[in-house]
Amino acid sequence: MQRDKCGELRREAAGRKVVLAGWVHRVRDLGGITFVDLRDASGIVQLVLRNAAHLSREDVIRIAGTVRLREARNPSLPTGDIEVEAEEVEVLSRAKPLPLSVAEEGLPSEETRLRYRYLDLRRPQMQRNLRLRHRACMAIRTYLDREGFVEVETPMLTRSTPEGARDFLVPSRLARGTFYALPQSPQLFKQILVTSGIERYFQIVRCFRDEDLRADRQPEFTQLDLEMAFLEDPEELFPLLEGLASYVFRETIGVEIALPLPRLPYAEAIAHYGSDKPDLRFGMEIADVSSLFAAGPLRLFAEVVAGGGAVRALPVPGGAGRSRGELAKLEEAAQGHGLPGLAWVKLGEAVTSSFGKHVSAETLSAIAAQTGAHRGDLVLLAAGRPEVASTALGDLRLRLAAELSLIPQDRWALAWIVDFPLFKEGEGRLESEHHPFTSPRDEDLPFLARDPSKVRAKCYDLVVNGIELASGSIRIHRRELQEQIFRILGIGEEEAERRFGFFLRALEYGAPPHGGIAFGLDRWVMMMAGEDSIREVIAFPKTTTGACPLTDAPAPVDEGQLRELGLRLEP
Amino acid sequence: MQRDKCGELRREAAGRKVVLAGWVHRVRDLGGITFVDLRDASGIVQLVLRNAAHLSREDVIRIAGTVRLREARNPSLPTGDIEVEAEEVEVLSRAKPLPLSVAEEGLPSEETRLRYRYLDLRRPQMQRNLRLRHRACMAIRTYLDREGFVEVETPMLTRSTPEGARDFLVPSRLARGTFYALPQSPQLFKQILVTSGIERYFQIVRCFRDEDLRADRQPEFTQLDLEMAFLEDPEELFPLLEGLASYVFRETIGVEIALPLPRLPYAEAIAHYGSDKPDLRFGMEIADVSSLFAAGPLRLFAEVVAGGGAVRALPVPGGAGRSRGELAKLEEAAQGHGLPGLAWVKLGEAVTSSFGKHVSAETLSAIAAQTGAHRGDLVLLAAGRPEVASTALGDLRLRLAAELSLIPQDRWALAWIVDFPLFKEGEGRLESEHHPFTSPRDEDLPFLARDPSKVRAKCYDLVVNGIELASGSIRIHRRELQEQIFRILGIGEEEAERRFGFFLRALEYGAPPHGGIAFGLDRWVMMMAGEDSIREVIAFPKTTTGACPLTDAPAPVDEGQLRELGLRLEP
Repeated sequence: MQRDKCGELRREAAGRKVVLAGWVHRVRDLGGITFVDLRDASGIVQLVLRNAAHLSREDVIRIAGTVRLREARNPSLPTGDIEVEAEEVEVLSRAKPLPLSVAEEGLPSEETRLRYRYLDLRRPQMQRNLRLRHRACMAIRTYLDREGFVEVETPMLTRSTPEGARDFLVPSRLARGTFYALPQSPQLFKQILVTSGIERYFQIVRCFRDEDLRADRQPEFTQLDLEMAFLEDPEELFPLLEGLASYVFRETIGVEIALPLPRLPYAEAIAHYGSDKPDLRFGMEIADVSSLFAAGPLRLFAEVVAGGGAVRALPVPGGAGRSRGELAKLEEAAQGHGLPGLAWVKLGEAVTSSFGKHVSAETLSAIAAQTGAHRGDLVLLAAGRPEVASTALGDLRLRLAAELSLIPQDRWALAWIVDFPLFKEGEGRLESEHHPFTSPRDEDLPFLARDPSKVRAKCYDLVVNGIELASGSIRIHRRELQEQIFRILGIGEEEAERRFGFFLRALEYGAPPHGGIAFGLDRWVMMMAGEDSIREVIAFPKTTTGACPLTDAPAPVDEGQLRELGLRLEP
Repeated sequence: MQRDKCGELRREAAGRKVVLAGWVHRVRDLGGITFVDLRDASGIVQLVLRNAAHLSREDVIRIAGTVRLREARNPSLPTGDIEVEAEEVEVLSRAKPLPLSVAEEGLPSEETRLRYRYLDLRRPQMQRNLRLRHRACMAIRTYLDREGFVEVETPMLTRSTPEGARDFLVPSRLARGTFYALPQSPQLFKQILVTSGIERYFQIVRCFRDEDLRADRQPEFTQLDLEMAFLEDPEELFPLLEGLASYVFRETIGVEIALPLPRLPYAEAIAHYGSDKPDLRFGMEIADVSSLFAAGPLRLFAEVVAGGGAVRALPVPGGAGRSRGELAKLEEAAQGHGLPGLAWVKLGEAVTSSFGKHVSAETLSAIAAQTGAHRGDLVLLAAGRPEVASTALGDLRLRLAAELSLIPQDRWALAWIVDFPLFKEGEGRLESEHHPFTSPRDEDLPFLARDPSKVRAKCYDLVVNGIELASGSIRIHRRELQEQIFRILGIGEEEAERRFGFFLRALEYGAPPHGGIAFGLDRWVMMMAGEDSIREVIAFPKTTTGACPLTDAPAPVDEGQLRELGLRLEP
């Protein structure tokens, strides 16, 4: 049956006959007359029913009626100029008393929301989030299609992939005793696809990691995966990715991103913001004031500097009035990062500091000058290993900025973090900072054999408002180099063959230079929706124990099913 | 580095400096001069190299050079007017001797193709297939987005779904002894999504079935899944789906489909074509000639008709000359369908028949008239239970039409098959013809209690050239009716609660009438690509034993992994 859309009726429709169908959003009975707010996907309109059967919230009804102007306009509704006098009412479906309210604010526990997700998703905010997610995906596909990218589906039933987290396994029935793995990412498939002549590949794809769930992780999540052939330098990829990001922000939430994006080397990000995903929406940059203390009177700091350490300083706007107690709490936080303590300079009426008389007024002025601090501000100082000092101050920077409401909520600060080290210290051996397929920078190749820790990678993260949105790299496309990297990572020849043999062989039949990136789609949509959890932008997420309260998955299975798979539960 | 596209160079480029990169498609060394066909994603261009290092097929090179007009044009290449004189050549990657040829026709075994898929996918036909698949998906999304549909992702780690095939199981580590199932389709999730106010839902989604693989099945396959709220009659959905199908055919392969599509009731499809997925590209309709035999002289046929059976007749154009031996083979095929035998009428110089003198010339003429057979044709007759007679003849119709090249290969014959029965005979009990969530037709509801076999369903298949492309239905949206259907299917209250309790509850909180459909995407793309197997349109398909020769999945896993999952292999 042809029906009109609730949310689209306006003054001009007055007098028109309409057919509407939807959910009873709110209902008021006023002695024989019932006022119903009827909701469909387009919005809400007020109905007037005379002598109608009793209606409850979330009943599904269909009405035929006439639009008329309201006596008292409701300015809070786009349809507030009119109402619909219902002449026929048909109840299509009844709703029992609701365990959660669609129309009101306040929400029950997340467990209840997920168990009754079909009610929870009806809330206007969740409707908006799912539609926003769809808009973002459409924008991604439209942009990449125009740029000549081909979306290719890669297998879900595949082989263990090299991301290092635990795989979800799927027992094979036809080949008992063997297992598929669900992909942690299509990393090797995408590299094989560009090697297969799909020079511009992308995919919006489900990925799986069997991790101990904490914070805002999901066992299955969605990634925008992308790869291009004939790339040797990240800068060849950035304009395209910046175009993508700005297009998606514009089309999805109407935000304009200024391009090109800044590039920030990893070392600078750590030094100035104490993080490899700095929030650049606000200042409070960390300054290096080591030179002021190198030959200075404060022996402790001078020794740190002489030993290769640094003295770093964080300006705190308007912080001069902080009490000793408050400063002690900040110090405690810094100690959590392994610093012995925290020094401070207050630029109050007078300039005071934790140094007492040991440090001259000139040095205090120089600290203020180098951090850009002004009268009324506080400067916090940390001395120690450079990364430790900066990371501790970076953490305080975020806490204090949030506390002081210094983070503009309407700004979008995007930046590339580049020049990551190729390796990091693992448990007794080197590990990949990103993953083992990342290419070293050409000029750093000589260090591979001598001092791998000095080798920088051709990899890059896209950071938005202090959150890592995407991570990528130029890949290794020569077998010999790939094998050398495996050796440095302690992956022996036999293990390399067993885990990655098929991929190493693919490099031997004409593999072009290539590179790519993967965006965390759930996180991107979450940010654009202004939500704090990815569960708010996933239709049917799991709890932190990996359970789905709606379907009660995972669940026990019949013994017969296990027998077919050649499996037995351990007692 | 900025590079030009090999396949786009034309006469006008003569004299231009270009940079090209790609794969060595073919190579000929002519004493100091090397001619290379260089291939990238855009096509092929001829290079002329002087004193170059030896190159092999599928080496990856980059060259800088100058475009010049060819002396002898090569009309078989779009770039055949020009060649590129290479001034600098850089070998980016070497290829070993190839296990399969990218440039030549002839192919090795499918096992070898899949093992070296990165070479196989470079072949122009596979490149075209993957790009065509991408185009089809873009067209689907563009159309549905314009029509207000929202793509929503549903879980892959979920609960056993009701399709009736075997589930792939995924053991949970956090809740040992329990399992997720990979979805056979998002059937219940999509019904829950429209119940959640996503009035127009779609998803291009991976589905999984652990079946014994035969013919052209894959353990994972892709479906276009679609659902709409406030539908009660299939006719409300058809215009939209027809618009979708015609848009996708046009945008993907430039074929125009005439709309609206014909609707063919299930009973007619069986009667006239002996199949619920008739190939309508050609005639050879099966006729019912029972009335000619009801009172006729042929006692055997008269008895069949009297007992509720039928005599059905298939015209075979130009078949009058078939020998006894050929007819015997056709009869054998019919016997495979459970028919005792096959009668025939030859409209040759004289009219002859297998009936000898038992059937009059007038009756033979009437048979010819009712089947539309002409001089030179053959008519095959089958007597028996109506479906059996028609199905046997329907099978012969397809075989003979193919053999006689009567199937126009450039036609696209689409039709809706409607009015399927709701139930079919299963092993000792009724089964759903489609699935248990299909709504009965309103006018047939009274039969549900009395004679369920008479109940027709609000379901529909979209058939293309004899292949089922999509299948859908209006769903049940009331719990009582859903429970009644479960009872008829022999699903007791406890089983219904255990398997579908969460879904039954969702129907109690305001579920609108709704319906939808699912398209087999792999099959659709296969048809548009003119391929005979879905493996030709899937980047990394599995063999018929569910194995991936590229990655050697599925594979054994460490015992430690199983221990973490609380599982043990059966000895």
